[in-house]
Amino acid sequence: MVKLPHQLFSPLYSLLSGSYMLIHSSSQLLTLAGGPQRGRALGTLGLIEDGAVVVRDEKIVAVGTTAELKASYPGEPTLDAGGCVLMPGFVDPHTHVIWGGDRASEFEMKMAGKPYLEILAEGGGILSTVRQTRTASIETLIAQTRPRLLRMFRHGTTTAEAKTGYGLQTATELRLLKALLALDDESPLDLVMTFLGAHAIAPEYKGNPQGYTDLVCETMLPILREWWGTHAPRLSLPFVDVFCEDKAFNLEQSRQILTKARSLGFPLKIHADEFANIGGVSLAVELEAASADHLVKTSDADIAALGKSDTVAVSLPCTPFGLAECEYTPARRIIDAGGILALATDCNPGTSWNESMQFVIALACRFMKLTPAEAIAASTINSAHAIRRADTIGSIEIGKQADMLILSVPDYRHLGYRYGTNLVKHIIKRGQVYSVDVGYYRTA
Amino acid sequence: MVKLPHQLFSPLYSLLSGSYMLIHSSSQLLTLAGGPQRGRALGTLGLIEDGAVVVRDEKIVAVGTTAELKASYPGEPTLDAGGCVLMPGFVDPHTHVIWGGDRASEFEMKMAGKPYLEILAEGGGILSTVRQTRTASIETLIAQTRPRLLRMFRHGTTTAEAKTGYGLQTATELRLLKALLALDDESPLDLVMTFLGAHAIAPEYKGNPQGYTDLVCETMLPILREWWGTHAPRLSLPFVDVFCEDKAFNLEQSRQILTKARSLGFPLKIHADEFANIGGVSLAVELEAASADHLVKTSDADIAALGKSDTVAVSLPCTPFGLAECEYTPARRIIDAGGILALATDCNPGTSWNESMQFVIALACRFMKLTPAEAIAASTINSAHAIRRADTIGSIEIGKQADMLILSVPDYRHLGYRYGTNLVKHIIKRGQVYSVDVGYYRTA
Repeated sequence: MVKLPHQLFSPLYSLLSGSYMLIHSSSQLLTLAGGPQRGRALGTLGLIEDGAVVVRDEKIVAVGTTAELKASYPGEPTLDAGGCVLMPGFVDPHTHVIWGGDRASEFEMKMAGKPYLEILAEGGGILSTVRQTRTASIETLIAQTRPRLLRMFRHGTTTAEAKTGYGLQTATELRLLKALLALDDESPLDLVMTFLGAHAIAPEYKGNPQGYTDLVCETMLPILREWWGTHAPRLSLPFVDVFCEDKAFNLEQSRQILTKARSLGFPLKIHADEFANIGGVSLAVELEAASADHLVKTSDADIAALGKSDTVAVSLPCTPFGLAECEYTPARRIIDAGGILALATDCNPGTSWNESMQFVIALACRFMKLTPAEAIAASTINSAHAIRRADTIGSIEIGKQADMLILSVPDYRHLGYRYGTNLVKHIIKRGQVYSVDVGYYRTA
Repeated sequence: MVKLPHQLFSPLYSLLSGSYMLIHSSSQLLTLAGGPQRGRALGTLGLIEDGAVVVRDEKIVAVGTTAELKASYPGEPTLDAGGCVLMPGFVDPHTHVIWGGDRASEFEMKMAGKPYLEILAEGGGILSTVRQTRTASIETLIAQTRPRLLRMFRHGTTTAEAKTGYGLQTATELRLLKALLALDDESPLDLVMTFLGAHAIAPEYKGNPQGYTDLVCETMLPILREWWGTHAPRLSLPFVDVFCEDKAFNLEQSRQILTKARSLGFPLKIHADEFANIGGVSLAVELEAASADHLVKTSDADIAALGKSDTVAVSLPCTPFGLAECEYTPARRIIDAGGILALATDCNPGTSWNESMQFVIALACRFMKLTPAEAIAASTINSAHAIRRADTIGSIEIGKQADMLILSVPDYRHLGYRYGTNLVKHIIKRGQVYSVDVGYYRTA
């Protein structure tokens, strides 16, 4: 028996510095050029039949038809995407992808009908993940998170937001950030970090949410500001996020945290309206947050406010699906109001352990009544806006990073139509080509 | 740039004839021994901690703990499943996996709110697939079906049932069978064939269902009987199935078809109670069909009848999911009545283009309230019973075919808990080892 050599994260093709690569003959090239796609403009694919793209180093240098670009770049190395869809890599703008351990046994108890409050009383729920995360070394956290990032990448996510939030104490939250910086370094998947020290009330502050809020504002955020300057001086500041819900941080506590974060220069995000509407969206719009996320119980007034703002509405359909609930983000009303809609996995160990944006699209089509084209735009250019990276990613345009997917289907509408498997064939990340669809491979 | 050599369906490891292979150190070995798992016995995993299996040629020759089998088979080649779950391959007992073309544009219309009747009036729906199938050559049908079988296999299905039914005319139905026989021959995935000439009323018989029923009984079935003896003399006869619903074949027509099939020696299946209860389950039980499938609108009396019969209740949760409907098979009532419950993908181009039994399990846990253990038993040993192959597959027992999965997870409950991706790492089919989780692979 011969063992298959196995290198994670190694590109299939490697472009030499300064050389060109022509990717051509896609049955459909989706550029998603322009944007953000606000309101009913959502779903503008910028489709080019028999489209082609030229890449040099990490960037896109030409976009057009195969005929045009073959004429302009004769003799350059080519990658044939014949019969396939060529599109931007997915941008997943909301994940809790770093945590310790799992909650598989809790899932079984839930399916067997055990009430969630009993599970919580026995130490289950989010605090179980907090315990498993606090006791994990940085090496363990990296080793457990790596396969999740690999799954994301293999399913076509080329940039993902990644939140801390299972530490709920300064040292662990910083350890999570340190692990995320290391994972970002080692993997082709780009991570955009978010500090979510305000994910839940730390167990030490049970019954004293104000005390924990003060700790986040007076201790964690100033320390984070300084730490980031030392540990990631070349990266822009992470987002600061807060879980604005009845059982977590109320509106005033959320305002206190986000206002403090803004005063320190952090860009903002918010978890709002997952279980109840307590005003998180208005706060996000007022403070010009990059995004407001979840948005299930959002009121008409808040939808109208989103429609007039640049705060992106990030919907997380895996969360109700994961919990077998029937109520999803009122996406069509957000679109009709003129909002900027994006989609994300919410990948986390409790409600939504799914790494695939393709499955998010399948849910959004069925349960939020998006067309495949709308769901694709919400997963690329609009989700790039949700993490304020649309200047470099989210569409196929000259000058942008060469982050693209070749799907093993002839028509973009197979996204949404099909579900449960992976339609990605190749991933192009910063101009390097990675292969997914290698099938079954014999070395002997 | 160097191209990756790419061989579909080639095993990673190849066992020499007569030699042993010890697969060991699984964190959990699920044997699923015994069965069928009737009623509340469902979910009996036969779990062995640190379990091991010995394979010789195509068969399982020993099952036990790693310590036991390492002592009994010292020095034999080994495959380390350390930290992984080792379990039987999935058996998918209901698929329409062979068809021509696709209906991606119809899906987009549906999501954009177009009524299904309008789509039908414009030539969409099942008859669109019938048109695309009738005009496809056998080579085209094979080429279009192969990647679907590859996806099934990659997601852990080691045996699948495959129905004809998009021909609705003798020549095309036989062409579909011929293609399926060729696909069964070329691929490690074993196919078990079902003749579903009675899938819908052929367009030539619009308004005359009795005329088409007579054609199926008097022409198609006798021709099939003779054809099978010539083309597949070594295989047991295919199942004969009928779509027993108001808009397809009524109860009397279904009885006519199944009775005729039985008189010719064919084993039986039925599609019943997807949209309305017109008595299909009672008919299946009366005629001792191997299975009754769909079972959404099934009455209490029919559930009680299933509970007393050997007809397996095959639930297809992807169908309501694919259509964004909320009503699923009343699985818990079938279990409580003592029925033999199985799960299948129903993979088809209209309602349910999903090849993964793992996703079926995720739906069954959430929307039919099965535990992961119950869903696993319904996808292995019980689904083997649904296609009458439980003598050779569906569990890890001495003498059975060596069809097994190594999952990249430490606990079986990750099935169901996680969704949207593929947890299979290696597939062992008839003793050959195939690898899925090869990651990103560089040859240059």
